[in-house]
Amino acid sequence: MELFTINNVWMMICTALVFFMHLGFSLLEIGLTRQKNTINILFKNTFIITVGLLLYAIVGFNLMYPGDFNGFLGFAGLGLEAPLNAAGTLDLTYNEGYTYWTDFLFQGMFAATAATIVSGAVAERIKIVPFMYFVIFYVGIVYPIAGSWKWGGGFLQQLETPFYDFAGSTLVHSVGGWAALVAVYLLGSRIGKYKDGKPQAIPGHNIPLAMTGVLILWLGWFGFNGGSVLSANPEATSLTLVTTCLAAAAGGVVAFMVSTILHKNLDLTMFLNGILGGLVGITAGADQMSPMDAILIGGVAGAIIVFAVSFIDKLKLDDPVGAIAVHLVCGIWGTLAVGLFGNLAGFAQLVSQLIGIGVYAVFCTSTSFIILFALKKTMGIRVSEIEEFEGLDAHEHGMDAYPDFRLNEH
Amino acid sequence: MELFTINNVWMMICTALVFFMHLGFSLLEIGLTRQKNTINILFKNTFIITVGLLLYAIVGFNLMYPGDFNGFLGFAGLGLEAPLNAAGTLDLTYNEGYTYWTDFLFQGMFAATAATIVSGAVAERIKIVPFMYFVIFYVGIVYPIAGSWKWGGGFLQQLETPFYDFAGSTLVHSVGGWAALVAVYLLGSRIGKYKDGKPQAIPGHNIPLAMTGVLILWLGWFGFNGGSVLSANPEATSLTLVTTCLAAAAGGVVAFMVSTILHKNLDLTMFLNGILGGLVGITAGADQMSPMDAILIGGVAGAIIVFAVSFIDKLKLDDPVGAIAVHLVCGIWGTLAVGLFGNLAGFAQLVSQLIGIGVYAVFCTSTSFIILFALKKTMGIRVSEIEEFEGLDAHEHGMDAYPDFRLNEH
Amino acid sequence: MELFTINNVWMMICTALVFFMHLGFSLLEIGLTRQKNTINILFKNTFIITVGLLLYAIVGFNLMYPGDFNGFLGFAGLGLEAPLNAAGTLDLTYNEGYTYWTDFLFQGMFAATAATIVSGAVAERIKIVPFMYFVIFYVGIVYPIAGSWKWGGGFLQQLETPFYDFAGSTLVHSVGGWAALVAVYLLGSRIGKYKDGKPQAIPGHNIPLAMTGVLILWLGWFGFNGGSVLSANPEATSLTLVTTCLAAAAGGVVAFMVSTILHKNLDLTMFLNGILGGLVGITAGADQMSPMDAILIGGVAGAIIVFAVSFIDKLKLDDPVGAIAVHLVCGIWGTLAVGLFGNLAGFAQLVSQLIGIGVYAVFCTSTSFIILFALKKTMGIRVSEIEEFEGLDAHEHGMDAYPDFRLNEH
Repeated sequence: MELFTINNVWMMICTALVFFMHLGFSLLEIGLTRQKNTINILFKNTFIITVGLLLYAIVGFNLMYPGDFNGFLGFAGLGLEAPLNAAGTLDLTYNEGYTYWTDFLFQGMFAATAATIVSGAVAERIKIVPFMYFVIFYVGIVYPIAGSWKWGGGFLQQLETPFYDFAGSTLVHSVGGWAALVAVYLLGSRIGKYKDGKPQAIPGHNIPLAMTGVLILWLGWFGFNGGSVLSANPEATSLTLVTTCLAAAAGGVVAFMVSTILHKNLDLTMFLNGILGGLVGITAGADQMSPMDAILIGGVAGAIIVFAVSFIDKLKLDDPVGAIAVHLVCGIWGTLAVGLFGNLAGFAQLVSQLIGIGVYAVFCTSTSFIILFALKKTMGIRVSEIEEFEGLDAHEHGMDAYPDFRLNEH
Repeated sequence: MELFTINNVWMMICTALVFFMHLGFSLLEIGLTRQKNTINILFKNTFIITVGLLLYAIVGFNLMYPGDFNGFLGFAGLGLEAPLNAAGTLDLTYNEGYTYWTDFLFQGMFAATAATIVSGAVAERIKIVPFMYFVIFYVGIVYPIAGSWKWGGGFLQQLETPFYDFAGSTLVHSVGGWAALVAVYLLGSRIGKYKDGKPQAIPGHNIPLAMTGVLILWLGWFGFNGGSVLSANPEATSLTLVTTCLAAAAGGVVAFMVSTILHKNLDLTMFLNGILGGLVGITAGADQMSPMDAILIGGVAGAIIVFAVSFIDKLKLDDPVGAIAVHLVCGIWGTLAVGLFGNLAGFAQLVSQLIGIGVYAVFCTSTSFIILFALKKTMGIRVSEIEEFEGLDAHEHGMDAYPDFRLNEH
Repeated sequence: MELFTINNVWMMICTALVFFMHLGFSLLEIGLTRQKNTINILFKNTFIITVGLLLYAIVGFNLMYPGDFNGFLGFAGLGLEAPLNAAGTLDLTYNEGYTYWTDFLFQGMFAATAATIVSGAVAERIKIVPFMYFVIFYVGIVYPIAGSWKWGGGFLQQLETPFYDFAGSTLVHSVGGWAALVAVYLLGSRIGKYKDGKPQAIPGHNIPLAMTGVLILWLGWFGFNGGSVLSANPEATSLTLVTTCLAAAAGGVVAFMVSTILHKNLDLTMFLNGILGGLVGITAGADQMSPMDAILIGGVAGAIIVFAVSFIDKLKLDDPVGAIAVHLVCGIWGTLAVGLFGNLAGFAQLVSQLIGIGVYAVFCTSTSFIILFALKKTMGIRVSEIEEFEGLDAHEHGMDAYPDFRLNEH
């Protein structure tokens, strides 16, 4: 009972920290975009958190953890149904690490994250109402089905050498990242992003808030990875926190160094994105790595970020916050790294990792394409030119983020 | 000993989270008001936190938890006196869930909250010095006496069917809300709030900070409600977190939907206030509800918010941040909901809830009226017109919140 | 095992809270300086966190905790080497309060703090590259060696009456503070700070962020002091949190009162610095004091702040954020207070405290002087006049913190 209680306390704290990541994402996104779209982004994020959690209660949790199922699709029923013991109180034998309630809430806080990643990539030109529909389908249905294949015990877990994704480099970050890629492709770039075919910088309007967002995300990752141990096991949790933090640090430092060598500036945004890349990269194997592995994985992620950001830019995929580079590219890297470094490294594991990456690539790009293409053909997904120019805050919400401040127009 | 230690750890973490709510309140308040009064609001909140905690150490804790007493008024003496055992060290049998020190600090972090609620409602036109006196009396004396009647084991706890208020929909939120109502009434509306009898929008100057405030408050509520279990009991704490988060989500979603139907906009402020309304609403019975109950209670709170905000506006009660709607109206709703939903639902309980609501209505309105009316007749409680026009920051503090930014005058 | 697990959970949470202090420091620093240097300050802080943690993994941890050593200098080898038991898994008998990994990470989060303190004092005119070198030497070598003398079991711990510094009034705050003093002296004051020999106010550009920083720091101090118990011992941890919070509150209130009496304003910055002074002051003896002692120590620190800030100003030491007053002066006060108040008070202890203060004064001023003087004579440590005038963001980083806002030039 004592051990159960402490495990459950740890999991509740991690749940709170993962919840707090939504503030981190919100501030990062608005910080890296223009002030005229701030309300819109905050609204989207508020919608994602609240609706995501409700949907997860109604359908998601039971889609993702259906119990015994065919390995591809299962559903344990609408709503939450706590397991009771003979005495009619909560059955605490549900799991050694947490109660049924904690399990739901921890997983629920993860669920909305995938949509948040998309939100950043499509910022500044997507229509709010179709985006809300997208969130409902993607968070309510796609994410939990995808999750069931591994965390729910589905077919990727049942491979001879099971696919491994400790805390979601693929299941959370790439699932969001693939949809971000599709959405950016369908949506097109912001007006003014490309001039004579060359990408133009559109600077973010509030870098202190972006920095705040990144440090809150790093803090939240203590819970995201630390809680993915699914108990308070001292060795596993504390090692996980060490690998997580070292990868973040290495990602940031390498990104800043590579960026400085290439571009001769000391680019804070790249430094911050490098930290996030390191965090995403370590997430798939945070419990399986030594500190040195973690530094390598994070450092490579940091280098990847710098090249990925400019490569994606050149492909004319306009991703205002670098979400595809951070979450998709580093998510893939982190998933592969499980086959290359640490306790699980080996050829068979690497193959399983590649299978997993491929499965999610196909499933996520196709489902997000279907949803977004259908929305594009029916409601349209892009705001009008005048709305984009004057800002989504004025047109979609009728309010300003900073009414007392005098602003530059652009 | 193990269980005691883990309980105490949980309670300390919850204490930290409740402390952090003060940042949430501060950012929400400044975000929803004009930049010219920012320093003033931050000063008030800093005063409330620090002086509130000191007062609670000197008199509040022993007024609120006097031990055996007549049920109406008791006082266990000035200052903190830790219970010692025979060996002269801290007596850990004080409670199964926490030490004497943790108890004091957790309750102390709650204490200042009531005054913070008032601070939001009176923002932008109250004189700072009389407000400080109000805080001293209200936090130092009124709040703990009010609290003693239920949480201190007083007469509302001794009713045949005891009044129930798990974490303070009434004891904290309505206690603050009633005083906010009285203060707004005595103070009058801000210049320019009503034109030809019609309420005018006075937009808040920094919506990103308001959003940050709300998400910090939601995070803090993990501790506010989770810690009100008064131990780390796995079933009770984890259920409480689930009901708390679902009510918040439902409150936000319903508020945004009702507001969109009525006003045809996608109002972020209403979305955020709906979340807070849901949180206040679930607080009285967070440990007694099913997830579905929580969604209903939160959802109703969200709807209430939309109507209450415009009703209060029409009454010419100028409440810049919606504190009365959120904390008083939803606090009353949440307290009633304990008699309507969940494990305690029933007619007798509903009557007790009504008694409790009535008792606090009378006590809080009369005490806050006496304090504020006395201050009004002696020092005056409202700044001069020129001070209000030019901003309290310049006149009361001689400093600006954003000296490097060019600002609009209004 | 249960007790070990709970101890380790507490320590991991405290680690997360100390990590979060880096956001607090970052926001406080930018809030109290001008917008044109915001990116630069954020960059410096990001560098400190990431490089600090990596350096601590590579050399710092093993310099600070070398095991048995001569008491002055020891080194247990490059990198992290977890102790294993016979079965090849982590040896959990390492300590009763935490695993090897938790130990490293908790101490690692402390390590960067000393450099952060310097960062504030030298803001707005130091060159970024030499500052990065300074960080590498000071965090990588000076801080851990200094720490080994007490926390690593070195000669100050081996005094007949051991020097006492619970959580680092001296080992962290003064170690940073002495270097800040040296750096400010070598660097000179900002252009425009002194006119006809008189100090001029250079107002900070974003007071809401400064306030946010202070409240995050206060929250972080729950972990900084609470974790310094090195276990979840209920009596020691909960008393520590109470003394920490009461000292913070008293520091703030006294600073605001003294400042109001002297300067007839209600100075929010002084209020906030008073809170920090109280926190730094209680840190050396937070586990040894009664609540009343804590209020006295914090209150004296609050008074000290007001006088120290204006005294340092008069010495023409230009410290934009008051870091020397807060961290050095209150750090010294807190260290002395251990000999004057609480369980350890006594003449012998006071002498040991004075010895400790003197040792760190000599070591930190001389090492920081050597590093900074060498940098000054080689690379130069101060930006050009034009760079300082136009801001470090434009010149060192080529980006603006707030590109959408219209700004005042000064």
